Amino acid sequence: MKRTEISTLGEFGLIDRIAEKNTLRQASTLKSIGDDAAVIDNSDCMTVVSTDLLMEGIHFDLAYTPLRHLGYKAVVVNVSDIYAMNAVPKQITVSIGISNRISVEAIDELYEGIFQACKFYNVDLVGGDTTSSMSGLVISVTAIGQAAAEKLVYRNGASVGDIICVTGDLGAAYLGLQILIREKQIWQQHPDIQPELGESTYLIEKILKPEARKDMIELFANAGLRPTSMMDISDGLASELHHICKQSGVGVYIEEAQVPIHADAKMTAINFGLDPITCALSGGEDYELLFTVSPSDLEKVRYMPDIYIIGEITDKADGIKLHTEGGKIHPITAQGWVHF
Amino acid sequence: MKRTEISTLGEFGLIDRIAEKNTLRQASTLKSIGDDAAVIDNSDCMTVVSTDLLMEGIHFDLAYTPLRHLGYKAVVVNVSDIYAMNAVPKQITVSIGISNRISVEAIDELYEGIFQACKFYNVDLVGGDTTSSMSGLVISVTAIGQAAAEKLVYRNGASVGDIICVTGDLGAAYLGLQILIREKQIWQQHPDIQPELGESTYLIEKILKPEARKDMIELFANAGLRPTSMMDISDGLASELHHICKQSGVGVYIEEAQVPIHADAKMTAINFGLDPITCALSGGEDYELLFTVSPSDLEKVRYMPDIYIIGEITDKADGIKLHTEGGKIHPITAQGWVHF
Repeated sequence: MKRTEISTLGEFGLIDRIAEKNTLRQASTLKSIGDDAAVIDNSDCMTVVSTDLLMEGIHFDLAYTPLRHLGYKAVVVNVSDIYAMNAVPKQITVSIGISNRISVEAIDELYEGIFQACKFYNVDLVGGDTTSSMSGLVISVTAIGQAAAEKLVYRNGASVGDIICVTGDLGAAYLGLQILIREKQIWQQHPDIQPELGESTYLIEKILKPEARKDMIELFANAGLRPTSMMDISDGLASELHHICKQSGVGVYIEEAQVPIHADAKMTAINFGLDPITCALSGGEDYELLFTVSPSDLEKVRYMPDIYIIGEITDKADGIKLHTEGGKIHPITAQGWVHF
Repeated sequence: MKRTEISTLGEFGLIDRIAEKNTLRQASTLKSIGDDAAVIDNSDCMTVVSTDLLMEGIHFDLAYTPLRHLGYKAVVVNVSDIYAMNAVPKQITVSIGISNRISVEAIDELYEGIFQACKFYNVDLVGGDTTSSMSGLVISVTAIGQAAAEKLVYRNGASVGDIICVTGDLGAAYLGLQILIREKQIWQQHPDIQPELGESTYLIEKILKPEARKDMIELFANAGLRPTSMMDISDGLASELHHICKQSGVGVYIEEAQVPIHADAKMTAINFGLDPITCALSGGEDYELLFTVSPSDLEKVRYMPDIYIIGEITDKADGIKLHTEGGKIHPITAQGWVHF
């Protein structure tokens, strides 16, 4: 029998392969595979569903991830997908697979983080599954949200001339992770040396305890602004730009100088011998929002706090381009997280 | 720091511990942890959500589980929970964690089974997550269904005098699993011996490719029958009786002679030196329905195909009892699957 390695397809290739064979039969399925979340029609309101699977050794390392933060983050990454649809998360389910290495106290800590996130994001834990695991800790979260049909924002709505924006700053989570990995290595070699994390609080918080941009969705609602397309930045800006462009059938032109990077992230990138813009483009897990607005909404976003205009939607034929601070124009290649 | 082993709580103890600390804030959360599925109010219709996490080495052994059957079953166990609410499944999400042992062809096979189940149960695959796994295959499925509020059936609706029924027959999946485990052991010791499965087709199909009782929900709807309580039998009849009795605040009296056990299951149990009724009570994974009906509905269920009246709901003080074929009355102890 033929054996093709999954690495030859990559994560997105694998998802495309599954999606191609997928037949939809329910009239209520408005949106299936391919956006931040699925959309289900309930006549008067839409149900929005998103799910994530977090695996020990792939998505987190318990050596430097407190369980409380892990629980919190497991909720955040899911509600982030719901916000990315311009919807409001309402309920979550949490399933866990646990090895006998994990104690009841450890589970309590994990759920403390989950409940803290439920409180902050005003969502209810409504179900789940608990099972044992032969190996590491596995956490699967499904978030369910609601929105009126006309409020929903998909990845496929960007048009030529739209302004492209991001919230917050980018690359910080990736650099926070690099610091944690470095400190773990030092600790493994010299268990008596205390980790030096003091200077990097912001970066470490971005990787260990990120927040979803609930505030932005509320800001949009208050300003009567509906982005033309939107998604959350989990795999890195470059990868997400490719998603928006592919699904909207457009190109994009990004100004390097406008991509927001925190001062600590810039400094740390340089210390690691990395280019800050590369970290912002290809580092993942920022959970900021990438969105486009119609040029007629420019005045609405121009003075919104923590929103940065980074470029413009162009014709598909123009490709996905970065105008560097040095004045050159480079194609932006998608990287995302390479799991496989 | 104190360390309590999860085995001291057990699965249900762990779930209770989590549920106790759970605060609900959303008016739309009608039912949270504690039934087959959660229920979310969408004004005109209810959204019903259920989720399961299947782990290699715990829930399945790839040595004797064809991936196509595994994919099929992963969907079945979830839609079964939706039917157990007297609701109709409409959508599913599927997340998978895969090690590099798994090829693209293997994933294709897994999804062939998933799509086959989607077709049979008329549900849409609307999303999910794909990630790599450091160890075994992990499958997390969430099913989403719909029902009118007045149709939903919970675990807590049984009253004294209600008739208790099961669909199909019990213990077959457990005995099918025993055969597969035996054949695997023989094969490991003597790789040249072909497995002897021919005589046990029914039992093996019940463990590898079970079906959810979609037909029963349709039968109930056509007959205008609404059970007073219902759940699916995934952990074994004994365990499920305890759930119904605990949540409804009642007791139950079961007639051993009325518990349906397939002839092949009886024969195989005896060959393994097991008591058939013990397999029916404590073997899990049958995915049949356990339900109660009001005595006034007796005539409706009496002649329904593949439905068996096995006893009566009694006062809580009377406990959970089995009237054996030998004429004795024994308490039924809950076992369920012991994961931890």
